[in-house]
Amino acid sequence: MSTTRHRIEKDLLGERAVQSDAYYGVHTLRAMENFPISGIRIGQYPALVKALAAVKLAAADANHKLGLLDDDIAFAIIAACKEIGEGRLHDQFVVDVIQGGAGTSTNMNANEVIANRALELMGYRRGAYEFLHPNEHVNLGQSTNDVYPTALRLAAFAQVQDLLDAIDTLRSSFSARAAEFTDVVKMGRTQLQDAVPMTLGQEFGTFAAMLAEDKASLIEAASKLREISLGGTAIGTGINCHPDYARLACAALSDVTGVALTTAPDLIAATQDVGVFVQLSGSLKRFALRLSKICNDLRLLSSGPRCGFGEINLPPMQAGSSIMPGKVNPVIPETVNQIAFAVLGNDVTISFAAEGGQLQLNAFEPIIAHALHNSISQLAAGCRVLATRCVDGITANADQLQANLDNSIGLVTALNPYIGYEAATRLARDALVTGRSIRQLVLDSELLTSAELDQALHPASLTRPRSVATA
Amino acid sequence: MSTTRHRIEKDLLGERAVQSDAYYGVHTLRAMENFPISGIRIGQYPALVKALAAVKLAAADANHKLGLLDDDIAFAIIAACKEIGEGRLHDQFVVDVIQGGAGTSTNMNANEVIANRALELMGYRRGAYEFLHPNEHVNLGQSTNDVYPTALRLAAFAQVQDLLDAIDTLRSSFSARAAEFTDVVKMGRTQLQDAVPMTLGQEFGTFAAMLAEDKASLIEAASKLREISLGGTAIGTGINCHPDYARLACAALSDVTGVALTTAPDLIAATQDVGVFVQLSGSLKRFALRLSKICNDLRLLSSGPRCGFGEINLPPMQAGSSIMPGKVNPVIPETVNQIAFAVLGNDVTISFAAEGGQLQLNAFEPIIAHALHNSISQLAAGCRVLATRCVDGITANADQLQANLDNSIGLVTALNPYIGYEAATRLARDALVTGRSIRQLVLDSELLTSAELDQALHPASLTRPRSVATA
Amino acid sequence: MSTTRHRIEKDLLGERAVQSDAYYGVHTLRAMENFPISGIRIGQYPALVKALAAVKLAAADANHKLGLLDDDIAFAIIAACKEIGEGRLHDQFVVDVIQGGAGTSTNMNANEVIANRALELMGYRRGAYEFLHPNEHVNLGQSTNDVYPTALRLAAFAQVQDLLDAIDTLRSSFSARAAEFTDVVKMGRTQLQDAVPMTLGQEFGTFAAMLAEDKASLIEAASKLREISLGGTAIGTGINCHPDYARLACAALSDVTGVALTTAPDLIAATQDVGVFVQLSGSLKRFALRLSKICNDLRLLSSGPRCGFGEINLPPMQAGSSIMPGKVNPVIPETVNQIAFAVLGNDVTISFAAEGGQLQLNAFEPIIAHALHNSISQLAAGCRVLATRCVDGITANADQLQANLDNSIGLVTALNPYIGYEAATRLARDALVTGRSIRQLVLDSELLTSAELDQALHPASLTRPRSVATA
Amino acid sequence: MSTTRHRIEKDLLGERAVQSDAYYGVHTLRAMENFPISGIRIGQYPALVKALAAVKLAAADANHKLGLLDDDIAFAIIAACKEIGEGRLHDQFVVDVIQGGAGTSTNMNANEVIANRALELMGYRRGAYEFLHPNEHVNLGQSTNDVYPTALRLAAFAQVQDLLDAIDTLRSSFSARAAEFTDVVKMGRTQLQDAVPMTLGQEFGTFAAMLAEDKASLIEAASKLREISLGGTAIGTGINCHPDYARLACAALSDVTGVALTTAPDLIAATQDVGVFVQLSGSLKRFALRLSKICNDLRLLSSGPRCGFGEINLPPMQAGSSIMPGKVNPVIPETVNQIAFAVLGNDVTISFAAEGGQLQLNAFEPIIAHALHNSISQLAAGCRVLATRCVDGITANADQLQANLDNSIGLVTALNPYIGYEAATRLARDALVTGRSIRQLVLDSELLTSAELDQALHPASLTRPRSVATA
Repeated sequence: MSTTRHRIEKDLLGERAVQSDAYYGVHTLRAMENFPISGIRIGQYPALVKALAAVKLAAADANHKLGLLDDDIAFAIIAACKEIGEGRLHDQFVVDVIQGGAGTSTNMNANEVIANRALELMGYRRGAYEFLHPNEHVNLGQSTNDVYPTALRLAAFAQVQDLLDAIDTLRSSFSARAAEFTDVVKMGRTQLQDAVPMTLGQEFGTFAAMLAEDKASLIEAASKLREISLGGTAIGTGINCHPDYARLACAALSDVTGVALTTAPDLIAATQDVGVFVQLSGSLKRFALRLSKICNDLRLLSSGPRCGFGEINLPPMQAGSSIMPGKVNPVIPETVNQIAFAVLGNDVTISFAAEGGQLQLNAFEPIIAHALHNSISQLAAGCRVLATRCVDGITANADQLQANLDNSIGLVTALNPYIGYEAATRLARDALVTGRSIRQLVLDSELLTSAELDQALHPASLTRPRSVATA
Repeated sequence: MSTTRHRIEKDLLGERAVQSDAYYGVHTLRAMENFPISGIRIGQYPALVKALAAVKLAAADANHKLGLLDDDIAFAIIAACKEIGEGRLHDQFVVDVIQGGAGTSTNMNANEVIANRALELMGYRRGAYEFLHPNEHVNLGQSTNDVYPTALRLAAFAQVQDLLDAIDTLRSSFSARAAEFTDVVKMGRTQLQDAVPMTLGQEFGTFAAMLAEDKASLIEAASKLREISLGGTAIGTGINCHPDYARLACAALSDVTGVALTTAPDLIAATQDVGVFVQLSGSLKRFALRLSKICNDLRLLSSGPRCGFGEINLPPMQAGSSIMPGKVNPVIPETVNQIAFAVLGNDVTISFAAEGGQLQLNAFEPIIAHALHNSISQLAAGCRVLATRCVDGITANADQLQANLDNSIGLVTALNPYIGYEAATRLARDALVTGRSIRQLVLDSELLTSAELDQALHPASLTRPRSVATA
Repeated sequence: MSTTRHRIEKDLLGERAVQSDAYYGVHTLRAMENFPISGIRIGQYPALVKALAAVKLAAADANHKLGLLDDDIAFAIIAACKEIGEGRLHDQFVVDVIQGGAGTSTNMNANEVIANRALELMGYRRGAYEFLHPNEHVNLGQSTNDVYPTALRLAAFAQVQDLLDAIDTLRSSFSARAAEFTDVVKMGRTQLQDAVPMTLGQEFGTFAAMLAEDKASLIEAASKLREISLGGTAIGTGINCHPDYARLACAALSDVTGVALTTAPDLIAATQDVGVFVQLSGSLKRFALRLSKICNDLRLLSSGPRCGFGEINLPPMQAGSSIMPGKVNPVIPETVNQIAFAVLGNDVTISFAAEGGQLQLNAFEPIIAHALHNSISQLAAGCRVLATRCVDGITANADQLQANLDNSIGLVTALNPYIGYEAATRLARDALVTGRSIRQLVLDSELLTSAELDQALHPASLTRPRSVATA
Repeated sequence: MSTTRHRIEKDLLGERAVQSDAYYGVHTLRAMENFPISGIRIGQYPALVKALAAVKLAAADANHKLGLLDDDIAFAIIAACKEIGEGRLHDQFVVDVIQGGAGTSTNMNANEVIANRALELMGYRRGAYEFLHPNEHVNLGQSTNDVYPTALRLAAFAQVQDLLDAIDTLRSSFSARAAEFTDVVKMGRTQLQDAVPMTLGQEFGTFAAMLAEDKASLIEAASKLREISLGGTAIGTGINCHPDYARLACAALSDVTGVALTTAPDLIAATQDVGVFVQLSGSLKRFALRLSKICNDLRLLSSGPRCGFGEINLPPMQAGSSIMPGKVNPVIPETVNQIAFAVLGNDVTISFAAEGGQLQLNAFEPIIAHALHNSISQLAAGCRVLATRCVDGITANADQLQANLDNSIGLVTALNPYIGYEAATRLARDALVTGRSIRQLVLDSELLTSAELDQALHPASLTRPRSVATA
């Protein structure tokens, strides 16, 4: 048996020993050493690894069709890419997600893993690049600068689909609550002050409505991800790339991913620009702000149990305190608030990275990819825990809501059309000073009869526009 | 002795003397005292004042049609609104742009100015609210919570139209430079390192292409501003509002503004939500990042004149230094960079304000309005100075660009298809070490003949994809 | 009547007519035209204009002592600077606060105004620069790159002193409330859920304590502003500057400002670095976050009046609604929240500007100055309105607080040492389910006697550590 | 085969089966299920786990001294904590770093692991809480609300010490380059335009000087972390805590950590406030901005090799391109730029979390902890790779630097004192137009003799202040 457990590879800096069972090669090895930053490897982002494999598969297919790759090499590359697309070999994608070089190391890592797996499939040993070369064959007609952004777009697109599914789950949960609470009348609030009546169903329906908007916005932003830059090579001019390559590669990539892709009309602009990621992050930020506002509302409405708003109950998910017996906290909304805060920070990170692009390339796409990955995946996780571990179990304190309504001063607004703004203001002040209810004060003042009052303050009528026959 | 220079007005806090020549009243007076923050008055934002007037006009028109306002009152209100829409009385909008109360003071300021001007037009003295009341008549069927966001949307929409015009100006300037530089070949750069050839025309064309994208994104974001919430009143339930009011007011407002408006499908959601502003700010942020990147590029390409890139010359606009004779600086791009930084800060301000919305209202719309106003107006100003005071006067240092190209090592990439990656890498290293040109080295090595080299390195062919008949 | 209403001045770009009554000259004129961005002129920042005058005075004094300026020229410059320091001629500082050129235009504006006023004082007409030149004399031994940052530091230092005074005002207001509420026991809350008792005095005392910390942090950050870079000239190497100038100018500037200044040990670092502004902005951000949190708490505690926490009352400052009679909103805290959001945005703006520094200079100091000015001045204004228009008038709803406390389940925590965590948890659950009070449940269960219970739940003892003799 | 592989534990929600070999218990189990967000477990933050163990050890020690814990229980807890402090059992800290509940689950995780390990050490089986209870004994006298922030402070303090060490490494590297380049004269640049001469040593010395400042700022910020809140329990009032506990626990914790800790003077403020983390993040942000600026400079100065500044060479660390032979990119500075961008985003995340604190607690400390951990650890990693993989290997292109200097127009500034600003400006313009050198033009114009010129332009004298005897 041979003693060597390493093979020798070389690059422009010289020779290096690579573990013989590694599918990655010298370029990846150097990158591992150069970027010991976050401890998170690109292999931990499966959507990105699968997207890289799809791109390489499409490129091989296009090059094969153009006669630039022989059958056996092309087929081996394609077979290796398919395996990775199915989830294999992801542990061989070992470069840190925070890396210099504009994604070159990620691309090189993919080239090397694919080449070595393809060599194996062809019956050669790993490292026998004379038969199939990471750069000459796997990367043929490509540059990191068109491969990497294209893979990032595909990965983000796939992740957004999952997020959309998670939003649907959450939206359904809110809609179900809205339906259940459709007859529960309560006081609405503006600026944390009692305002006018509404239903709890309307309140929860609003959450569902806002999520629908965000979904639409995300679909729109994601749809722009479908414009790719394969064929631009180094700076978008397409140097060293066959004139028909871009078209063929785009078609092949559409096939393999099932996503309708197009080639960007201006490849030079597309190569240097990260605007599509900025826009996606902007949509994620908008969604995060909405989610955070919703969670703030849930925490407010469930504040108490005795000294707060106490209008709804969140289902208890765990003991809330190591010192306060029986305390239960809104831990799920709090989690989602924090996810939102992380997304908001990621958006600023992405802004700095975008601003730092220079001339024909933005070298900072890796941190954009990292930030986007976290934003999307954590938002999706947040939607799901919020739906299943919180919203689905929310109940209303109907008695408390009704008592609040009866007791509220804000009801007086509904009397404006009957008794005028001036008289209404006087009543409101009296109520505040005396602690009495608006109903009592109106009856005492004989401004309206009890029957008129019933009509004026009929719950359902307070929660929508109505035509009042003024005196 | 002069007699009265003040009139007495009162609100729920009591009586106050208001200067008799003021069109605003007691509510505005209190707000002036409560918010001595930025020193910038809402009257300094003409788009907002005009939008408020348009909303009030539309409301009066709708109420008149519904029979809720008498002819003389409705006509007087409408006439007053028209005057304001034409630019008059803006100095009477005196509340600070940074204000509490969710815009109530801005709405009250508008109600009071319109009421007093309408009273004048009817032949009454200012303050004679028994004939026409700021709240009872000007504000009829309205709440700050539907009026103010609607006015903000209209104001932002109008401002964005101006910005789009400014973007067109800048885009034309870049396109003109792109056309002029279409035959100027140069080295492209990635990661600030010499990469492969392109034309200076391509470089400037990219700037134009990216602006076109931003314009499209802004049009999309602005189009969402056309969805308004008039008729929602206090919290979106439409309390105290005639069932037909929303439709009539929307139609009237479309008429008076010339913008095709629609009523939001869920007025409760629309009342509390500021997502449309977040999205607009996101688009402005994306545009600001692009502009900043472009300005960074212009400053890099014009760095020198002797010790930098020195590829282009920006027109000198002013002396650059009080101590260094003859120094000229890229002051216009630097200005635009700073505008971008302000926009990026504004976006974070808007995010905090959006996150702070609670239950049925976001009380922080005034700071959102302030930040958006500054972002839009300063970006428009920046586009115009960049176009007219910088881009239009840019010239190319064609000799320097050609010399750089001839001297560059990056040319070697174009030889890949002819001599292979391995040989090309060797040549690149030799060039770096010896300081000689790629052309010389190839000829010395006899890898290619002079004729072959001419063909391989023909400038035009390097800047686009090509099919190479490899050996 | 005189015919000429203009004088001719020239710079490296050629001749320009300047209004004859202007104290500024051609450099300022060009800058006005180049930077039509925000509409805010540097003259609107009096602290900056005064700081510039102080720097120019100190430079003239140092140069005079070094024999580099004749008596009459030096004295005229100094006299002109003193006038500006007293508030005159600020309307002549007309360049936009958002400007390219790293502050050169601001420096030039100062040089020109001072030169022309000094010429007048010497008996010459404005523009007669052959007798006293803006660059040769007023700017002698200086560069924008040492003058401008030094003036920014002085201006920020002065503004921070005013902010510290405003913080003191607010702190006193909170302390007064804390003293008044020292015996008002209430339920504390964590995560918006009822927790354990405390006093309202403790709650307000916390606000005062946090402001004291922020004050200390701001004093620390401001103290670093006292390190200046005069004498560094263009890039910090001190080219064209007398070796004794830095020392003399620093001493003179300390004299005229009354601030103990020192010269930075490494002038090259000091010239290019804006870290001191980043740190100051960081301290302002921290303070803004605190203020915002405090305002959030005030709004929460005063929520209601009937359907919220209702623990305290903010003094009404203006009518809260155009549609809801009697509604009063927390407009002052809302204003301060928004100031905080603006400060948080400014901090990001400053971060981008700081990151954009290149090599020997940061060209983006003008936007840093603009953002800092707004942050400091608005925070100071916010502290003052919060103190005088809100905190000073806050009252407690003692009955509501006591009822909440008696009714709370959180009291059970105090029984842990007496009855154990297990029994306490059972009681808490029973209370939640039955709606009964902890006190009733304990008595019913005979776990403690009424006397024991009184001792265990004695209000004062619940709000501080105590030693419990467990059974 | 054994049958039971689980044990049954219960909490207020009911019973759950816990894997029998787990040291954590039911509370941890629920938290794992509730927070499937980031996939990063708190055990991956060793500094935090060790800090938690230290706090628990100190609390046990204090309680033991107070007679509240028996010897055997106290000793077992302390022994278990020591093991964790040495790095054992970290895999049992399994809760996600993004979690609701204000850190309760982290505290519970620690309580359970310590209790079960202590039980083992006492000879009991895991889960036998009747002998030693996670809450009653391990958490005695504590609340998450004092334990968790204290542990976060300790963890951050420890991490900052490591960062300071990394900064020292980087600073030494810059200082070594500064020393080596002390005689290399070059052109300095402002606003990317050629300015006046300096040495490359001065340029690198500046980097070292700025790092020294940042180190001081971080030491200052870290020192504030030493103020802890143990003894405050639930809301800072110290309920259920012995009056002597805070003092004893603080002393014990100082002993075990070797850090001089103090108890915060106002525990209620300390419990709800996260200002110390905001300030630390602010210092990290400042440092990140500096690092990013330095990396931008390194990338600019090394731009080329032929078409850029080309003043310095960064050591090649890996092949730069999959398509461009011989290309080497500044991958290490690019990595550090991206770390900085992440830190800047984290700072915004922390700001949102800080702003979200309500009343007596900030529930969002977990995301603050997560963001701070990443910022500190990645900055430390970045400093180290920048020092060892980049700065240490930087070389100067002395010939290029000298040629640039000789050729520069900026030299003319040094002639101001000899020939006046006017003549100097003329020369500068001539140089720009004709392409000739300043030296040639001066000699041709006979303004100075060759000897005078040599003296005026003597390299060393140009890089510092000098006294010039003007004509």
